[in-house]
Amino acid sequence: MQKKSFNLRIPGPTTLYPEVRKIMGSQAFNHRGQEFGALITETSTKLQKIFHTKNDVLIITGSGTSAMEAAVINTLSEGDKIVVISIGTFGDRFSQIAHIFGANVIDLKFPYGVPADPIEVKQALKKNKGVKAVLVTHNETSTGVLNDLEQISKIVKQNSDALLIVDGVSSVAAIALPTDKWNCDVVISASQKGFGTPPGIAMVSMSDLAWKYYEKSKLPKYYLDLGRARKSLFNKQTPWTPATHQIAGLNKGLDLLLSETLPAVIKRHQRAAEKVRTAVNKLGLELLAPESHASPVLTAVKTKHADEIVKEMRKKGVEIAGGYGPLKGKIFRIGHLGFFTDEEIDETIKELKGVISKI
Amino acid sequence: MQKKSFNLRIPGPTTLYPEVRKIMGSQAFNHRGQEFGALITETSTKLQKIFHTKNDVLIITGSGTSAMEAAVINTLSEGDKIVVISIGTFGDRFSQIAHIFGANVIDLKFPYGVPADPIEVKQALKKNKGVKAVLVTHNETSTGVLNDLEQISKIVKQNSDALLIVDGVSSVAAIALPTDKWNCDVVISASQKGFGTPPGIAMVSMSDLAWKYYEKSKLPKYYLDLGRARKSLFNKQTPWTPATHQIAGLNKGLDLLLSETLPAVIKRHQRAAEKVRTAVNKLGLELLAPESHASPVLTAVKTKHADEIVKEMRKKGVEIAGGYGPLKGKIFRIGHLGFFTDEEIDETIKELKGVISKI
Repeated sequence: MQKKSFNLRIPGPTTLYPEVRKIMGSQAFNHRGQEFGALITETSTKLQKIFHTKNDVLIITGSGTSAMEAAVINTLSEGDKIVVISIGTFGDRFSQIAHIFGANVIDLKFPYGVPADPIEVKQALKKNKGVKAVLVTHNETSTGVLNDLEQISKIVKQNSDALLIVDGVSSVAAIALPTDKWNCDVVISASQKGFGTPPGIAMVSMSDLAWKYYEKSKLPKYYLDLGRARKSLFNKQTPWTPATHQIAGLNKGLDLLLSETLPAVIKRHQRAAEKVRTAVNKLGLELLAPESHASPVLTAVKTKHADEIVKEMRKKGVEIAGGYGPLKGKIFRIGHLGFFTDEEIDETIKELKGVISKI
Repeated sequence: MQKKSFNLRIPGPTTLYPEVRKIMGSQAFNHRGQEFGALITETSTKLQKIFHTKNDVLIITGSGTSAMEAAVINTLSEGDKIVVISIGTFGDRFSQIAHIFGANVIDLKFPYGVPADPIEVKQALKKNKGVKAVLVTHNETSTGVLNDLEQISKIVKQNSDALLIVDGVSSVAAIALPTDKWNCDVVISASQKGFGTPPGIAMVSMSDLAWKYYEKSKLPKYYLDLGRARKSLFNKQTPWTPATHQIAGLNKGLDLLLSETLPAVIKRHQRAAEKVRTAVNKLGLELLAPESHASPVLTAVKTKHADEIVKEMRKKGVEIAGGYGPLKGKIFRIGHLGFFTDEEIDETIKELKGVISKI
């Protein structure tokens, strides 16, 4: 366990507010009692506000990856033709999950560091008739690249009847993602990103079309069966013993988000991202993502000294992240996600200057 | 959220010690850093002590049910002939999971309230050659009946080459379950039972034989793929972002267990169970379980006033549980599981006397 207070500048888990920590440390309570019934209902309703959706938002006790799997196994059947757009590690993960569960995957892979080209998505849909679903990462945490989801959604909906499944793990609650307006049928997210709560809870929103797919889906499912979760939510319960404390913490994180207001939260992330990118540019370092598609929640910086910089920053009390997958050792990543403060961002920039000057 | 301090006498989630609550309320930390590496390794090693095993004990971010599913999908393939012993709701759940994932299930079902008859297990194995696995609940939380696992294990191993898969959700860390000595190949448990920590973490121990089954298992798996978990644990990580706070809390719960010592913990549960059963008998109420197989961690009491008693006890500040599944409204259940105190048990008995006298 980390003893001293670190400036946690990785792209999740994110720093916790005292209010969230207090709830996380509360006494145990009955997961089948009235209090929990009120809690799960309240939390799901607040999630609908943050997801900008009228759809069901279901709460899973699990990591973000459990929600990625849930999105696949609750909507698809073996042999279903699908397009998976990947611009990094988490897009690749979506593809891997779909492959493992027997989907007929058309991989639309872009190099690490660039966004998906909507034209190529259009071409893939024109070339491959009868695509059942398109899977796409909104914000790719491994590269700090933001896909143009609004544009991709338009193309998917104009050129196919496909279900649009969105990995919003690191974007929901931090980057604009109006689920219903952008016709996103399935959107998943996780507690340790924009919600400012510890990891351990995943969420899935399901549109009416997604539920139609659910009815036809033949993949076996139990723990991650969203139909069971929906039925239980209606009865103010979860199908399996839920992570009570995590859900109570999430409920508090949602209160904090709603009281700051989502537009203000989104702007705060944009401002921090611009500040970090400007500072990185001034230091003469190269940004991985193009400015037009740079992530508002994390900034990836190309340098052969990446691992050393992560290590030195750590000595200064600032925890940043290294590269992931093929970018290991080639980039470092600064998170500006969740309930960070201006002071934390300024401190990060100050320490980065100091570290860079000595390398 | 429950505001006042309740005497939580349900069979999990259980009351949390201040030490565990403090850790649960700690600041966020890097799930890929050295601290977490030490934490996951330490926690898994301590779990081996509590499970009495040299086998790998893997940690899943999920409910106990996720570990039940993991036990099935990591060892079996579609069409595998298996025997599922059920003495209640959780045995039925194991059977349901196995059915859903396409196993060829021989259901060995006993009435709610009685333990499995080892002779019938022997007969089932003699009658059905080539059984790949036997699934059994150690302590059935829905009825408060403890199966004779030692005897069942002997019969399984003497009469078949089957893998023995044990649901130890409510028994590990509270009731004697020497995994290796009793040849239990897969044992699962969950954080909110004997470990005195909040729900949200599940554990699975896997024997060498279980890993051999894993290699042959053809069921698709990703989030709950224990091979990935084992590989990650070797690298002091988890494959997916783990519930950091829950694991830190579990690590603390394990410290408390190991410092009390497991034999003392087991005896404490037996003493509390005897005290509760004696009190219930004195009140003229009928116990559901036969004395010979009464659970050391919860006591189920038969009465047509069950729901009223639960409600009245709640008014007195004692939270007990009602019946589950077909026993709903027909029994109430008193939990004496986890880090309870003598005072809490005495208070429960006192309030129960008061409530019963007015019904």
